[in-house]
Amino acid sequence: MATLVLLRHGESEWNVKGLFTGWVDVTLSPTGEEEARRGGQLLLEAGIRPDVVHTSVLTRAIKTANIALEAADLLWLPVKRSWRLNERHYGALQGKDKAQTRAEFGDEQFMLWRRSYDVPPPPIADDDEYSQLGDGRYSLLPSELVPRTECLKDVVARMLPYWYDEIVPDLAAGRDVLVVAHGNSLRALVKHLEGISDTDIAGLNIPTGIPLRYELDADFRPVGKGEYLDPEAAKAAIEAVANQGKK
Amino acid sequence: MATLVLLRHGESEWNVKGLFTGWVDVTLSPTGEEEARRGGQLLLEAGIRPDVVHTSVLTRAIKTANIALEAADLLWLPVKRSWRLNERHYGALQGKDKAQTRAEFGDEQFMLWRRSYDVPPPPIADDDEYSQLGDGRYSLLPSELVPRTECLKDVVARMLPYWYDEIVPDLAAGRDVLVVAHGNSLRALVKHLEGISDTDIAGLNIPTGIPLRYELDADFRPVGKGEYLDPEAAKAAIEAVANQGKK
Repeated sequence: MATLVLLRHGESEWNVKGLFTGWVDVTLSPTGEEEARRGGQLLLEAGIRPDVVHTSVLTRAIKTANIALEAADLLWLPVKRSWRLNERHYGALQGKDKAQTRAEFGDEQFMLWRRSYDVPPPPIADDDEYSQLGDGRYSLLPSELVPRTECLKDVVARMLPYWYDEIVPDLAAGRDVLVVAHGNSLRALVKHLEGISDTDIAGLNIPTGIPLRYELDADFRPVGKGEYLDPEAAKAAIEAVANQGKK
Repeated sequence: MATLVLLRHGESEWNVKGLFTGWVDVTLSPTGEEEARRGGQLLLEAGIRPDVVHTSVLTRAIKTANIALEAADLLWLPVKRSWRLNERHYGALQGKDKAQTRAEFGDEQFMLWRRSYDVPPPPIADDDEYSQLGDGRYSLLPSELVPRTECLKDVVARMLPYWYDEIVPDLAAGRDVLVVAHGNSLRALVKHLEGISDTDIAGLNIPTGIPLRYELDADFRPVGKGEYLDPEAAKAAIEAVANQGKK
């Protein structure tokens, strides 16, 4: 039986500003760094020692991993990174103010973009300052593979190959795995793991900075519900995330 | 032609205290963090964008890499780590005060341990508080492979397999490579690259925090001398290292 731990990055500078971020590479706020440290301490206190770490290629997830691992005295762990663990691409909304977007397009459209399973925001223009075309970290991706927008369904589709090809082999080799990623790439993974329906996934929020542990069976499915290492903080944070974007 | 960049970690907490460190996992001092940041800025200013990073499994090298890469906006680079890039194991001297050791054993013995090619310090006892037996990061190493002491010749012997098996294939694939490691593991690598004799290697010091660039030929040998990205700072630092351990 293998252990899988999921960790969502802490508060970023654009979380503070209330902007849609997606694939824009913003860094952690001081609060986000503190959340990462606390996440590492929770691992340490729970006696969880992953054997390998997987992160996205976005700075806020990588810094969260680095800070948490240092706090857990595990900075030396082998690490793999992939764009397939990136946050959902927010299309033309990237860089836009969340509250302004809500006021401009109305509650219904706003929630559809944020929470529907298969309705992506309008695509970002290739010459938009927040497009990722030309970003060196995606230089090995053919241009058509760089997202212009994504719904959660798209995230599931591009995340799953990494789960099957890179994470499952680690688990199969008996390694305990830590995945440090984003709200929506982790929702996509939890949807897969727990078999959550396309409808019910809308109600799932994953709090930042609190490790979520699964014990997996021989088929790499959870034997029970995921367990947050700080359940009370997780409960409070989930409620806060649900209120995000409201005035 | 591939580019290889070597970066020695910045000042550690035990550098400040004047203690022999070796494989003891001490972290960077604030000065060391600043050196790492400067190293990353030098990469950025020189327009050097490595494709992959190799580090030891010691925190001070990993933190140097993380800080430098963040300063160079390259935190997302793929990274591999290996004990084969670790600092020289300092045997029973690990944790000992350098000045006291010099006073106790005399200049000749002190310099023999520090600078001879093939005379290791006395081995560390397996139950010494500064032994690495039982350290989780070496759990995949059979006990006999965990060093009890090393001379530079030993470092060359255990470092070269990593050079040939992990770094050269990256270079052969056309990737520019950054290696972030330690005074003696980098001296061992430079000895190999430049074909420095067992005698002459005693005179080679590599300054901390200043990237050292080599252009390599098809046989993975330098086409010229290595070039420090800040030659004046390198010169001053080399002189400072040479005076280390003197009162």
